[in-house]
Amino acid sequence: MKLAVAVVLLAALVASSHASSRVDGPPFPLPIHLLRPLSGSAGHPLIGVSCESWRVGVEANNVRDWKTIPRTCEGYVGHYMLGDLYRQDSALVTAEAANYAEGLNLQGDGKDVWVFDIDETTLSNLPYYAHHGFGVELYNGTSFQAWVMTGEAPALPESLGLYKKLLSLGIKIVFLTGRAEDKRNVTAHNLKMVGYDTWEKLLLKGSNVSGSTVAYKSGMRQKLIDEGYRIVGNMGDQWSDILGEPEGDRTFKFPDPMYYLS
Amino acid sequence: MKLAVAVVLLAALVASSHASSRVDGPPFPLPIHLLRPLSGSAGHPLIGVSCESWRVGVEANNVRDWKTIPRTCEGYVGHYMLGDLYRQDSALVTAEAANYAEGLNLQGDGKDVWVFDIDETTLSNLPYYAHHGFGVELYNGTSFQAWVMTGEAPALPESLGLYKKLLSLGIKIVFLTGRAEDKRNVTAHNLKMVGYDTWEKLLLKGSNVSGSTVAYKSGMRQKLIDEGYRIVGNMGDQWSDILGEPEGDRTFKFPDPMYYLS
Repeated sequence: MKLAVAVVLLAALVASSHASSRVDGPPFPLPIHLLRPLSGSAGHPLIGVSCESWRVGVEANNVRDWKTIPRTCEGYVGHYMLGDLYRQDSALVTAEAANYAEGLNLQGDGKDVWVFDIDETTLSNLPYYAHHGFGVELYNGTSFQAWVMTGEAPALPESLGLYKKLLSLGIKIVFLTGRAEDKRNVTAHNLKMVGYDTWEKLLLKGSNVSGSTVAYKSGMRQKLIDEGYRIVGNMGDQWSDILGEPEGDRTFKFPDPMYYLS
Repeated sequence: MKLAVAVVLLAALVASSHASSRVDGPPFPLPIHLLRPLSGSAGHPLIGVSCESWRVGVEANNVRDWKTIPRTCEGYVGHYMLGDLYRQDSALVTAEAANYAEGLNLQGDGKDVWVFDIDETTLSNLPYYAHHGFGVELYNGTSFQAWVMTGEAPALPESLGLYKKLLSLGIKIVFLTGRAEDKRNVTAHNLKMVGYDTWEKLLLKGSNVSGSTVAYKSGMRQKLIDEGYRIVGNMGDQWSDILGEPEGDRTFKFPDPMYYLS
């Protein structure tokens, strides 16, 4: 592909960069102080950056502690979630994971496990979020739990493919979810209905558990290790699913621009 | 924004997802086994996913240990690096960082430091990479070091803006780079020339250092802690810049789809 234009653009970049070192700030796209704070803000408009940059910032764990997506990004996130790119992004992650898993030297003693989160990692709540602004509305526990209780969440097709691949390699599956223990039956039924028909453990959150997701999930992973399991892989849509020792031998961040759990 | 079409697409997603649970794999975009391995491959074509998904996979640390960008992505990566999106992605990261830094309770004793990587974080080697396929060519140490010795790398404007903001808040700057000690003079001169005119430390790699970037950089950060510094922030374009304890109180991944350092 020819990039003749690129050289002109590059010259402009170099020139503007050198120029900016002589004045008191970068001229493009906007001085930093004009960019609205993004983290922790609820529904604020983005100024100076696109919704695409915001989404990539979420995936790279640069944008943290947000309560809702930026108000101006409802359409963008909706189209992303329902369009081809979300599926491609999902396919890339699961292909990387499958490729990694195929290269493992497994011991074959039944102690190699893969930890999967559930919501937005193996099951999709998109039918719910499509009716609730794709994350632009503040989380509503009552309506979300009512949706969970329907047991009708579809499988994320790429994750289901990975699940089957891992099983075929002899890796056992552990589901580790922030869903509460009282959702055990509906969750197990929902998983089976859409094709996740076997697992080593389905770990839900006890009613006595408090604290952050990182503390809860890393504690549960430590318990698996203490029971003699080797966590060869760990996949979740939230950074809080995959940060915190023991993380597992390798972690995978499944895409999710709709909500943030610390 | 109206998303009437979205509901139709959603219905299709749910339908295809349910259908896929009854056959033996997801029908879209391609079965996993047809996706070529991505990690560790040199210049392989991507099949079934876009260069955009590949880039986001790199930013999210899902795609690792690659030697070159996928061959088919040279044009995409070139246009990304020279276009608006790279600048917007950079602006988002530095705005998040500035916002975070402004919210800190600093002790004002001169021990609060921010660790910056240099290449593709504060200085740009884009003039070099624009002549070398934007990462599609295997790394060539001879030609790259010759470029470094020119001392003509421009500042990344958004990072320079962040640098000035941090200084104005009373945070001291530590540059921590994989560049070798024999590049000290040219690196210092290059930094000053483009506007990075002061720092607490400029840490380069000694000739006796071996091992991974993670081991080297986390070791150097530990040394800073041992000297009484508090690393309030840590920014790099490589995950190996920001992983490994002590990471710093908060880390920021600056975008870089051109190369991978483990």
